[in-house]
Amino acid sequence: MNKVQIVEVGPRDGFQNLKDYIPVETKLKVIDDLIEAGVKSMQHTSFVSPKAIPQLRDAGEITKILLEKYPAYDFFALVPNLYGARKAYELGLRKVSYVVSLSASHNKANINRTHDESFAELKTIMDNYKDLDVCVDVATTFGCPFEGKYSTDTVLRFLDRIAKMGVKEMSLADTIGIANPKQVREIVTAAVKKFPEIEFQVHIHDTRNMGMVNTLTAIESGITKVQSTLGGLGGCPFAPGASGNTATEDLAYMLSDMGYETGIDVDKLIEAAKYEKSIISGNFSGHIVNIQKGTQCIN
Amino acid sequence: MNKVQIVEVGPRDGFQNLKDYIPVETKLKVIDDLIEAGVKSMQHTSFVSPKAIPQLRDAGEITKILLEKYPAYDFFALVPNLYGARKAYELGLRKVSYVVSLSASHNKANINRTHDESFAELKTIMDNYKDLDVCVDVATTFGCPFEGKYSTDTVLRFLDRIAKMGVKEMSLADTIGIANPKQVREIVTAAVKKFPEIEFQVHIHDTRNMGMVNTLTAIESGITKVQSTLGGLGGCPFAPGASGNTATEDLAYMLSDMGYETGIDVDKLIEAAKYEKSIISGNFSGHIVNIQKGTQCIN
Repeated sequence: MNKVQIVEVGPRDGFQNLKDYIPVETKLKVIDDLIEAGVKSMQHTSFVSPKAIPQLRDAGEITKILLEKYPAYDFFALVPNLYGARKAYELGLRKVSYVVSLSASHNKANINRTHDESFAELKTIMDNYKDLDVCVDVATTFGCPFEGKYSTDTVLRFLDRIAKMGVKEMSLADTIGIANPKQVREIVTAAVKKFPEIEFQVHIHDTRNMGMVNTLTAIESGITKVQSTLGGLGGCPFAPGASGNTATEDLAYMLSDMGYETGIDVDKLIEAAKYEKSIISGNFSGHIVNIQKGTQCIN
Repeated sequence: MNKVQIVEVGPRDGFQNLKDYIPVETKLKVIDDLIEAGVKSMQHTSFVSPKAIPQLRDAGEITKILLEKYPAYDFFALVPNLYGARKAYELGLRKVSYVVSLSASHNKANINRTHDESFAELKTIMDNYKDLDVCVDVATTFGCPFEGKYSTDTVLRFLDRIAKMGVKEMSLADTIGIANPKQVREIVTAAVKKFPEIEFQVHIHDTRNMGMVNTLTAIESGITKVQSTLGGLGGCPFAPGASGNTATEDLAYMLSDMGYETGIDVDKLIEAAKYEKSIISGNFSGHIVNIQKGTQCIN
């Protein structure tokens, strides 16, 4: 009951948000470090248009190398459509995340589809690739920039539609980092209770400084898989200066210090974060790497 | 039961940690903004040696101006000794915080006193100034850089010694930002239960990214007065790059969004934080001021 799995999504959600392209060998070093520190599951890239997200134009190359180097590892890639799913599948990947926004207007703005179109594409992917695990990322679960927040009933109805497709795993995403702990408690508690057959994750952004508290609240409300990014990279490419995701190393430190089993060597993870910080410019928001040993404070 | 009072300590703990001295009129503008936004209680300065903390060398001047401008407001100053208490009292202030570290070695390193010496000085202050409210700041309650963490029993025994002096208010300080929510829950729950006659506050540092979660946990464990600093300034003058305190504007946003009554106009507070950010260089760690309206994010 005390086990929590941290799912690293930085190589996708983090790197895609950096201004500069990170070379393949540097990305691989970060991924190696994460695996070496004990991270057991990772969204390592995204199969999207290289024109839309040039930072991840090496998705195929990275996937090939990783599947060869770590054949038994739990890698998964984000795919926005059948085309992406096919590319991932043909490279040998057997797990993807597929994004649908609870907000119809955000879904339209983000991937230019109606809900019906999104669900039809999901069905095609699942029908075509029977042995592909599809986790549905439910964007804007906790609020939308256009539509505001939703009642728990509205959220549950949408999750029910996804569950009825035969999906086994969902990630509840706070896309714009607007959730508060009360809301997370209500929605997560209700979702976990209503869909005992679904494995839920949360994907929490730290935009309003609630990354850590909302992630912990999700755990205390019954979720055992939580997404985060090394260094807290990520967030939103269109909001310069805004914070990214919850920082994996800070989250792992907190959970470990509270007695949760994460299987992660926190010291190694902090070293990994320090390396990552050294190879990117800006956007790093993790706290722990900044602590200098031997300092003493007044009050 | 749903009321929380946010106690702003930035004009003391924040400004003392800035590299540059902030002129009196600028400090007063920040303080005016905070009061205008509805903040009801404030640690506005510290009566310490101007050699030790030159940033607060204007303590007397600021105090005089504020007491004249806001005669009924709940201002209080930090004092490390009888000398500081006398200066504060003679200026007309009737409330101070007096610091003692739970850690004997930190107490020695910080204010060069044994516990016995600290308690003797406290007694002298209380005996000399009967109508001076003294809140005892219990530094290192949640852990010390030299001695590590303490059992809840050890904490309670130390609080008991303070309570027996006749003190009515204590602030439990996470001086090095090392508390985790489990620990905060245990210690705060036990303290509130054991000392129903004491009004407790918490003073939480954000060093390890747990500022928001630890503050909320303290509230959910029975504390109704929480300290924070506008912009998250503060923390530790000897740890460059490390995060400061919990950011008042982020905390007020979260509590308000969760339905707590703080009496604060969050929009005005965010404007105050933006102004503050514009007049300092670095050290600002609040998140919300960075959000740009009209941005939209993918996942």
